[in-house]
Amino acid sequence: MKKRIVLALGGNALQKNGEATAEAQKQVANQVGEVVADLADKYEIVLAHGNGPQVGNILIHEEVASTKEAPAMPLETAVAMSQGQIGYWLTQAINNAYLKKGKTAKVATVVSQVVVDKDDAAFKNPSKPIGQFYSEKEAKVLAKKNGWTVKEDAGRGWRRVVASPKPVDIVEKKAILDLVKDGTIVIAAGGGGIPVYRTKVLKRLKGVDAVIDKDYAAEKMAELVGADVFVSVTAVANVYINYGFPEQSAIGTVSVEEMEGLKKFGYFKAGSMLPKVEAAVTFAKKGGTGIITDIDNLAEALVGKAGTIIKNS
Amino acid sequence: MKKRIVLALGGNALQKNGEATAEAQKQVANQVGEVVADLADKYEIVLAHGNGPQVGNILIHEEVASTKEAPAMPLETAVAMSQGQIGYWLTQAINNAYLKKGKTAKVATVVSQVVVDKDDAAFKNPSKPIGQFYSEKEAKVLAKKNGWTVKEDAGRGWRRVVASPKPVDIVEKKAILDLVKDGTIVIAAGGGGIPVYRTKVLKRLKGVDAVIDKDYAAEKMAELVGADVFVSVTAVANVYINYGFPEQSAIGTVSVEEMEGLKKFGYFKAGSMLPKVEAAVTFAKKGGTGIITDIDNLAEALVGKAGTIIKNS
Repeated sequence: MKKRIVLALGGNALQKNGEATAEAQKQVANQVGEVVADLADKYEIVLAHGNGPQVGNILIHEEVASTKEAPAMPLETAVAMSQGQIGYWLTQAINNAYLKKGKTAKVATVVSQVVVDKDDAAFKNPSKPIGQFYSEKEAKVLAKKNGWTVKEDAGRGWRRVVASPKPVDIVEKKAILDLVKDGTIVIAAGGGGIPVYRTKVLKRLKGVDAVIDKDYAAEKMAELVGADVFVSVTAVANVYINYGFPEQSAIGTVSVEEMEGLKKFGYFKAGSMLPKVEAAVTFAKKGGTGIITDIDNLAEALVGKAGTIIKNS
Repeated sequence: MKKRIVLALGGNALQKNGEATAEAQKQVANQVGEVVADLADKYEIVLAHGNGPQVGNILIHEEVASTKEAPAMPLETAVAMSQGQIGYWLTQAINNAYLKKGKTAKVATVVSQVVVDKDDAAFKNPSKPIGQFYSEKEAKVLAKKNGWTVKEDAGRGWRRVVASPKPVDIVEKKAILDLVKDGTIVIAAGGGGIPVYRTKVLKRLKGVDAVIDKDYAAEKMAELVGADVFVSVTAVANVYINYGFPEQSAIGTVSVEEMEGLKKFGYFKAGSMLPKVEAAVTFAKKGGTGIITDIDNLAEALVGKAGTIIKNS
């Protein structure tokens, strides 16, 4: 029986050298497609992906060109739009990678709602900047008008900030699992998922403007589909201690305890390696294998020969 | 065993009185969700939908606010974005309609590529206006720069026009069928599908800027998933002869031959009832039942008691 793996791919990875045209991003997607098509001989695959730069551009277009007749879509719907966009590129890339091998792919993108807790502390302190930059005056007008929280962003201007709550469930988990069991490569939980919460009494789903970390969402996916391995696919082969310094050293196969020890020492930066490490550790604690590596080392890492591999000892 | 039905829902239907905010469109989606949730007790359902006004607004935002750093997405990718957008609204609406009944829905939106023939005659005569209006001068500059075809649109200004080729295949058909068989309500082929063609030699998939009629795409879906019934859900209870005139008369249950006879008489208008009639007739010819009705009469039409019902006699 094939092992089941969940891959979390960075949204930045699709924009090589910041090239944001559809054509340029499709070319990068094609490289991802070839890797996924090779892995699919051995593994059942769910591919999650980020959407930072893509949803950023969608939001900017929506906000800049908003009119009464063609009003801007809110962030939660923009995430759904980015799932269609990136999911399409990746689906087509995987289809074409199979054709190159003389095979027909079974691959599908499932639009995914990820449930968060409306009482998540993150909602009390929105910190994730999104969309375009504004002057302080503009930002404050928009904040009042739209109920936004706005903040000054590192000397570059004012931006809207939203909460980044933790994922607690994935609405489409059963459909995704059905597809995986039927031998389909599934692209899901794009951009960390469309953020939704359940209303208190009726438990109805309701979209909320927030950003869910794609590594946390993919880890939750790995739990929900009963995956054997969760991989955060990033820009570097390993997690490092003292990254960028002469004494830099790569972390190979480690236990949960070792990794948590290093985390306590403050080796991993928030907004960078920390969420990947936390997601991989969380998955390892639940009994699976958590891996952090780059796309070039992915196949080797899956057989224990590369990457940072975290296991519950 | 449940009958399998494919519903084609108009994209205009989601914008009641032209209200294009996400909130307004979600409210209409909620009404659709309730109807679908009721029908799902008796039928396996694939829900296709149009995207005319939605992808129109996305394109306008993309074009108006395009910059080097955040370039406009092409039409084919904009269709993918609209599938994420509308698919999300409909998925959530169906989830919530089930919750109201105290049940949990199994529903998923599959991003769908629909294959067209690059040699389709439609590509030689692009006729479908999309995106914003321009002055003649602007339009001709853009045409030269982007390789667009532009045309004057009924005295309202100049617009880009694209081809509307016929659908020949749906790339994700197997995944969609797996889901339907597993009891999932599937939303697919949104906006007539992301238009793609296969390259001559390698048969690779490639996106193309075109618009596929949602009724034709949904009919193709009905064939590919082995549906019993195809329904074009529109704004009127029946197809009519002499619609709007004193001698107006509703068409009930008819044979393929009768419907084709009426079509030859020129009773059905292109861009309005004609594609719906053609899609329903095509499906009836293949041995299924083709229905045209509105959402209020849908349940009755499915048991033969309302709507225009076309059968191969």
